Amino acid sequence: MIKISLDVMGGDFGPEVVIPGAAKALERHPEVTFVLYGQREKCEPFLERFPKLKERSELHHCDVAIGMDEKPSQALRRGRNVSSMWLAIDAVKEGKADVAVSAGNTGALMAMAMFCLRMMPNIERPAIAGIWPTARGESIVLDIGATIGADARQLLDFALMGGAMARALFDIESPTVGLLNVGAEEVKGNEEVKEAGRLLREANLSSLTYYGFVEGDDLGKGTVDVVVTEGFTGNIALKAAEGTARQMAAFLKMAMSRTLMAKIGYLFARGAFRMLRDKLDPRKSNGGVFLGLNGIVIKSHGGTDAEGYAAAIDVAYDMVKNGLSKKIENDLKIYHAGQQPPAGPEAA
Amino acid sequence: MIKISLDVMGGDFGPEVVIPGAAKALERHPEVTFVLYGQREKCEPFLERFPKLKERSELHHCDVAIGMDEKPSQALRRGRNVSSMWLAIDAVKEGKADVAVSAGNTGALMAMAMFCLRMMPNIERPAIAGIWPTARGESIVLDIGATIGADARQLLDFALMGGAMARALFDIESPTVGLLNVGAEEVKGNEEVKEAGRLLREANLSSLTYYGFVEGDDLGKGTVDVVVTEGFTGNIALKAAEGTARQMAAFLKMAMSRTLMAKIGYLFARGAFRMLRDKLDPRKSNGGVFLGLNGIVIKSHGGTDAEGYAAAIDVAYDMVKNGLSKKIENDLKIYHAGQQPPAGPEAA
Repeated sequence: MIKISLDVMGGDFGPEVVIPGAAKALERHPEVTFVLYGQREKCEPFLERFPKLKERSELHHCDVAIGMDEKPSQALRRGRNVSSMWLAIDAVKEGKADVAVSAGNTGALMAMAMFCLRMMPNIERPAIAGIWPTARGESIVLDIGATIGADARQLLDFALMGGAMARALFDIESPTVGLLNVGAEEVKGNEEVKEAGRLLREANLSSLTYYGFVEGDDLGKGTVDVVVTEGFTGNIALKAAEGTARQMAAFLKMAMSRTLMAKIGYLFARGAFRMLRDKLDPRKSNGGVFLGLNGIVIKSHGGTDAEGYAAAIDVAYDMVKNGLSKKIENDLKIYHAGQQPPAGPEAA
Repeated sequence: MIKISLDVMGGDFGPEVVIPGAAKALERHPEVTFVLYGQREKCEPFLERFPKLKERSELHHCDVAIGMDEKPSQALRRGRNVSSMWLAIDAVKEGKADVAVSAGNTGALMAMAMFCLRMMPNIERPAIAGIWPTARGESIVLDIGATIGADARQLLDFALMGGAMARALFDIESPTVGLLNVGAEEVKGNEEVKEAGRLLREANLSSLTYYGFVEGDDLGKGTVDVVVTEGFTGNIALKAAEGTARQMAAFLKMAMSRTLMAKIGYLFARGAFRMLRDKLDPRKSNGGVFLGLNGIVIKSHGGTDAEGYAAAIDVAYDMVKNGLSKKIENDLKIYHAGQQPPAGPEAA
């Protein structure tokens, strides 16, 4: 049985989206149970509408809800031990849940998750991994904005964690991992990326296949299963791509409504347009995975609807079911055992 | 009269694309004359087909053509003073041309341009500025890959140069300039970007309007006229967006050919699809502008066709006609005059 804790107050809409989203996810995964944290009087009316969900949920009242604009430090001060966000994360720490989902603000959620769950041994920085729709299917991209300016060692950690996540999500034995860079040649790029490439080649890991450098257009092509980059560039690349997709959709819509002929054409082809819209539906790739902590937290888009929130719960479900945490722990252990200096007087 | 020098051997196709491209551009700008550098026996057969172009061109034979994969250092060693690429740039230095255009490899072209033309006074790094199609029209984005890791002072220089280019290209008095970042709040981002923001606010320039931070999705929205970023992130954001656009176009094509109904719809709406294709035509935004050198060099995509190459010549034409170099020089002079320490014994 998989237990998922939800920050019901998180996101632009709170219970109005979270509870119907959970109900949708429950239909797909009837063995799940939920631990809900939120303001009782706001949650109960929505919960009444979904008797199956109500039956498989445990609602815990809490007064404090973290705002979407609250700064991480303020959220931590005001919300520690008492907010729906903190309590959903804390449920993972206490073993009451296997994974937490929140649509609350990213900065506050990351700060609380780091404070509550702490970093895994040997990991210096957390990362947020996103699922990127590609021409071949899906890839994992990390870090899309947990922190800024990862060094070579930290990029290597991201590669290890991303590789473990790809094995959990895509069920492949040795996922390909590329480092995002401005060219494929070994001499290109900044020092950190070049050094990370050297470390990955030398580590010669069995848990992943190091592909080499990839460029910005390889993201959409799906050249590798996992793309590793530091958070500043990753965040900007993600938003640039999302923006381009939205812009093209708007152009297409405009073109299809300009003339009578185009409108007639649209009517004939509307099945095709529907397929296209489904394929490009950003809600389907909702769910950023926080990696590197002692416990899994999933971040949903703040402005998503119930369908999108259910997709974030799906990601949470997959991560637990496929043993993400164990996979990361094992991979780190194997890597660091290989890096251990030989025992001897100098190895103190 | 505007004189444009062309590296006829540059690009994946050399004279086969460059000469028809120049002929197309000449139709739009009949007052232009060209100085062509290339292997005579390869250029003349193409030139014969365009008598008007031949009449307004001066062909200079040279033996050496720089390969698309040649490393900058090798290109410089082998091609200095003798290659079509070098000679096209040198024509700008010698006053035989107002601007040079090349579809040759970016690294070699930048190395030669820096070596031949040298940096402008007060500029430490060159930048490549690209023209980005947006929902509102076009924006300028720089640096899209000249160098990696610009610091705050260099980002400020990029803002000054990008502002001057926007005035030359868009004919607006005080273009809006934004710094690309992971959030709009002042506390977000890396130190260099935050410091550049402070410098831009304090400089209080009349040549541009500092907007503040912009995010990846603001690129496609066209939130500001000029987006400033360092070359690593700029290159990756550009390629991620181009990749997304290509991927969506491929999905659309596939959707429109899957069913008979979709095919019929496509026939009715083909005018709309043609309009969409024109609007999104990457050839139209071909032409990266090298900024910060004593002379203007335009980089065309290596794999473009005659239409795309003509667009790069259009950019070259606009930059000369609207006095880009003078505008940059003036803006730099005004900025640095304002930054001058007061005269006195300490100001030695």
